[in-house]
Amino acid sequence: MAVGYSGLPALYPVSGVRIGVAAAGIKKVDRDDLVLFELQPGSSVAATFTRNAFCAAPVVLARQHLQSTASRYLLVNTGNANAGTGKAGLADAVSCCDAVAQATGCRREEVLPFSTGVIGEPLPVERITDAIPALCASLDEDNWSAAASGILTTDTVPKGSSRQLTLEGKTVTITGISKGSGMIRPDMGTMLAYVATDAGIEQALLDTLLREAVAQSFNCITVDGDTSTNDACVAIASGASGVELKDNSDALKVFGEALTEMLKELAQLIVRDGEGATKFVSIEVASAADEEECRAVAYTVAHSPLVKTALFASDPNWGRILAAVGRAGIEDLDLDAVTIHLGDVCIVRDGGRDQTYTEEAGQAVMSEDEVTIRIDLQRGAQQLTVWTCDFSYDYVRINAEYRT
Amino acid sequence: MAVGYSGLPALYPVSGVRIGVAAAGIKKVDRDDLVLFELQPGSSVAATFTRNAFCAAPVVLARQHLQSTASRYLLVNTGNANAGTGKAGLADAVSCCDAVAQATGCRREEVLPFSTGVIGEPLPVERITDAIPALCASLDEDNWSAAASGILTTDTVPKGSSRQLTLEGKTVTITGISKGSGMIRPDMGTMLAYVATDAGIEQALLDTLLREAVAQSFNCITVDGDTSTNDACVAIASGASGVELKDNSDALKVFGEALTEMLKELAQLIVRDGEGATKFVSIEVASAADEEECRAVAYTVAHSPLVKTALFASDPNWGRILAAVGRAGIEDLDLDAVTIHLGDVCIVRDGGRDQTYTEEAGQAVMSEDEVTIRIDLQRGAQQLTVWTCDFSYDYVRINAEYRT
Repeated sequence: MAVGYSGLPALYPVSGVRIGVAAAGIKKVDRDDLVLFELQPGSSVAATFTRNAFCAAPVVLARQHLQSTASRYLLVNTGNANAGTGKAGLADAVSCCDAVAQATGCRREEVLPFSTGVIGEPLPVERITDAIPALCASLDEDNWSAAASGILTTDTVPKGSSRQLTLEGKTVTITGISKGSGMIRPDMGTMLAYVATDAGIEQALLDTLLREAVAQSFNCITVDGDTSTNDACVAIASGASGVELKDNSDALKVFGEALTEMLKELAQLIVRDGEGATKFVSIEVASAADEEECRAVAYTVAHSPLVKTALFASDPNWGRILAAVGRAGIEDLDLDAVTIHLGDVCIVRDGGRDQTYTEEAGQAVMSEDEVTIRIDLQRGAQQLTVWTCDFSYDYVRINAEYRT
Repeated sequence: MAVGYSGLPALYPVSGVRIGVAAAGIKKVDRDDLVLFELQPGSSVAATFTRNAFCAAPVVLARQHLQSTASRYLLVNTGNANAGTGKAGLADAVSCCDAVAQATGCRREEVLPFSTGVIGEPLPVERITDAIPALCASLDEDNWSAAASGILTTDTVPKGSSRQLTLEGKTVTITGISKGSGMIRPDMGTMLAYVATDAGIEQALLDTLLREAVAQSFNCITVDGDTSTNDACVAIASGASGVELKDNSDALKVFGEALTEMLKELAQLIVRDGEGATKFVSIEVASAADEEECRAVAYTVAHSPLVKTALFASDPNWGRILAAVGRAGIEDLDLDAVTIHLGDVCIVRDGGRDQTYTEEAGQAVMSEDEVTIRIDLQRGAQQLTVWTCDFSYDYVRINAEYRT
């Protein structure tokens, strides 16, 4: 069960966005594995994708389609990533888009394809196209919860968030869902995440909002350091609320903050449900010279198998944290200035164990389900938080058994 | 048991180098945990150390001593790393050197200290200094095997290698030992390794030889990506054989190759005995533009928890290898040109699964204890091999239980 997970909240429908869900039998029978988003004409769509060089066929095609025209449909399948599938994989992604275009009367380029699941297997196109009539028949504004379940792979829980704001005297809704559990270290993209609002936001503006929010959310999480071939985060603005958010407006600022908060929540849900996770860990790097330093230190600690197994053991083995900070590649780091805290307990000061530190105090922090590690470099004004999880027997089990 | 380990070979004594071994009770009672090397006057010593910014007190002091004068003694303790111990740790390292100097009649600066074990605990100086008389009394040229055991921590087997060469008509011996099992991703240094020869080699020349050999051996291995605070590799040339190796001589070339081969063997022994290792994995990167690219690709694959757990499961889940290559940060990588082989079996070609690939063929390679992954980038002439191991339940167990 995901760390600190309290169930899927009620997800408000977003006016102008309908969702279909169907079971195509892509990898398993009798589970929903196909999701279709239908966007009302005039909707804006922005997306960020993985920067893995071996990005999947649907990522290549979705990028092309997004650049060429406004999007009307998003087709998502789980159970097969259609990655590492070469030219055949690209043709398969095109076939799926064609099938949606035929069924709905739109053009192929108006369909964005997304896939997640095992890498390197041919996409079972026929199973998908056969299910598209049922998928279209199920289109409904109230299908967000079903969609949250329909996009999962090794996830153990569905992930969603929803809120309503009052902007310019009207109610604006933002609802989002995400999936992901392993192969998680998004790099300018994310695992799959879809956020929609009924506010009206110009394409370019939505793009900026999304990139800013992703930088502070999905690009600040890691489960295992492995950047997926299929990561994508999509924001949709239907405009159906009648509220049009203009550049530099107060309403846009409020909306942008709400969007960032929601993406943080969705990103953190992925970490809470990280493969085999028993702890939710926040790594705060403070007083760094720049963001690059923050990321180097935070990710070196977050990816250290030694730190992660110590977290699993609830062992305040702070020497491993110190060793990870030391190998993060920060030039001229003043070791005597660095402080490291576990929660509120100072563990490292003046180049060694803090004088006031006791094993009991460290143990108390590490025994919690949620642990904060704060590293203060004392060399600048930049700060950043990265979220990760521990490394357990179950991570090994899940990934040693995944294909069998 | 270490992968492909066939026991500690006979280790030739090295004329001019005596070794003492004693049990000081640093962490456990009744096991050898203290080793002293005594070098005949006029010996050359070269060393490489960790580049972890939080390097241990003995590393700081050994660097200083090595620069200030010729070395006569190397004192090595296991059971405590004396790292993350601040100013007190440095004073403790000085005290240990002082004790050796007093017992042997040399100066403090002629003693190089080395420590390995748990990070952040105060060094039990008295236990060490109390054992120094026994340590000195045991000095003997024939103590290499005892020393190989006396420096171990979580290692399961002692690691050593020895050979004799005929150079300029005389017999020259090289013998070396190493230790290390976890927190292994040496960065310009190594875990602890000591290699001695009775050839005579000038200090500067020995330094060059060592650096070249380390670059191709200890700096090409990783167990878990965690660079230790205490890594050190030391080469000793006593000159007692009467063979003096001059710069640019054929004999030096032969010796240098033998040294490199020996360090590769010692480095690979660390990987074979990697914490929880069940596989020994060679990652060969070929046709890269430069060495940096080779390292980026090889280490990204070698550190991927998903690749490592697939190796543990003997699962030819090549999509994970492809995803790791894709996130290694190589600019403008031509995906269609890249090929990836498991042993002799081509798994990736033309951006996807090779047409001739069968799961059976991949499975056969992955079922072996020793697996080679070959990644051909087709964009240059550089190649490099990195050695690593898989990621098993036992890695988690060992590191979740290490301090308890």
